[in-house]
Amino acid sequence: MHNFAHTLRVYVEDTDAGGIVYYANYLKYMERGRTEYFRYLGYSKPALFEGLQFVVRDISVRYFKPATLDDEIQVSALLTRVTRVTFEMRQDVVRDGQLLAQGTVKAACIDELSKRPRAMPKPMLATLQQQLST
Amino acid sequence: MHNFAHTLRVYVEDTDAGGIVYYANYLKYMERGRTEYFRYLGYSKPALFEGLQFVVRDISVRYFKPATLDDEIQVSALLTRVTRVTFEMRQDVVRDGQLLAQGTVKAACIDELSKRPRAMPKPMLATLQQQLST
Amino acid sequence: MHNFAHTLRVYVEDTDAGGIVYYANYLKYMERGRTEYFRYLGYSKPALFEGLQFVVRDISVRYFKPATLDDEIQVSALLTRVTRVTFEMRQDVVRDGQLLAQGTVKAACIDELSKRPRAMPKPMLATLQQQLST
Amino acid sequence: MHNFAHTLRVYVEDTDAGGIVYYANYLKYMERGRTEYFRYLGYSKPALFEGLQFVVRDISVRYFKPATLDDEIQVSALLTRVTRVTFEMRQDVVRDGQLLAQGTVKAACIDELSKRPRAMPKPMLATLQQQLST
Repeated sequence: MHNFAHTLRVYVEDTDAGGIVYYANYLKYMERGRTEYFRYLGYSKPALFEGLQFVVRDISVRYFKPATLDDEIQVSALLTRVTRVTFEMRQDVVRDGQLLAQGTVKAACIDELSKRPRAMPKPMLATLQQQLST
Repeated sequence: MHNFAHTLRVYVEDTDAGGIVYYANYLKYMERGRTEYFRYLGYSKPALFEGLQFVVRDISVRYFKPATLDDEIQVSALLTRVTRVTFEMRQDVVRDGQLLAQGTVKAACIDELSKRPRAMPKPMLATLQQQLST
Repeated sequence: MHNFAHTLRVYVEDTDAGGIVYYANYLKYMERGRTEYFRYLGYSKPALFEGLQFVVRDISVRYFKPATLDDEIQVSALLTRVTRVTFEMRQDVVRDGQLLAQGTVKAACIDELSKRPRAMPKPMLATLQQQLST
Repeated sequence: MHNFAHTLRVYVEDTDAGGIVYYANYLKYMERGRTEYFRYLGYSKPALFEGLQFVVRDISVRYFKPATLDDEIQVSALLTRVTRVTFEMRQDVVRDGQLLAQGTVKAACIDELSKRPRAMPKPMLATLQQQLST
């Protein structure tokens, strides 16, 4: 089973007056997780941006327990579907083995200039598809 | 038909290196819309926090077109379901009549101290339920 | 005396676990104030970006009293110095006539492509200089 | 010479439509640097918050070169002055040995409830003063 996770720390900037991590900031954590997962696969962000761009089409997040200041948390990235122009992921936000939030995201590959859908490079597609079966 | 909307401006702080509004910031816009909607109903934020708190349990957002720097946009707040301890809303982000993003959110009322679910005050419940039928 | 001020509302996104507005967010408020001041002078953000860009070189902020959730606050923009390639401003953040924070900012005009200092357009320079004497 | 530095990565959330890190976000980086420095000294954030709180009174930042997406950068924390109720720091933001921004910050210790100035615990004071002379 594939099991990529990125570890991060909760800082004051992430919290709100309720004393917990502000709900929109989980989307930042999820993007950090995706970014580090792509880096792990050999695609650092600049590489992604050579003429193409991934944009998020859909996200959903279910919040179970709040993260709080100074927590060390893990955010995972698990590909669940890959096409030539899109991918879908499930992303868990976990602290000490306890699930805090679970998100799903669908992203599409577009041309950086025309902003129209564009097939991702074949080697990247192959890499992502291979992740599905591992 | 009920039709509350809050107007806001896109500033540099909201944008990202892709030249568009960062995807997590739509959740900030949505919360501003909910806050102003509750204010319009007579519940300013401090009132909400007298012993109870609304926390988001679920959100989902579908992104259609990006907002960009300096755009003036509207974010709506439409109640779709109300129980004693939860409410659900649909929220549209619109620019010049064009739908940029559409979100749904489910929030729960909890006790500020125990953090356990708690029924919202009866007058507030009545106010919210009345909104459903208008 | 010149007296431009932009009014804004403090939302949950602006606060931190200390229950007050997070210190970095005053810089967001200050930029909103500058942006609205330039708009008031006839320069909306897109106009600013036609080939040139203003970048901040120096900021300093002194914090007196914290802003809190749901506050309505004003942020002013007062030009204190203007050259062909730079301007300096003082910016006050005020709630109910009480000074919460005071900032100074120095910004420089650069060419959008070369990123090198570039004189601002003569009409803009004249407009800004006129503000100094009013 | 004392030389504490915290390494971090620039993500999309940190950037703006100018293609660089948004100027307010350097204050987030600086706070992460201070937080990790205090952790290194034995004071994790929760410890700091047992009845007292550090609040920023003054900050100033000079910006030399912009950080961009995917940069790995270091933010240092160097105590320059310590009293019973305040400390001052210099903080450099560096990429590959090149200075991107330099900040100074003055923070004060206050009572969490009364919000009035309060002397920090003697062991913490001794620890910070020792850092000055190393």
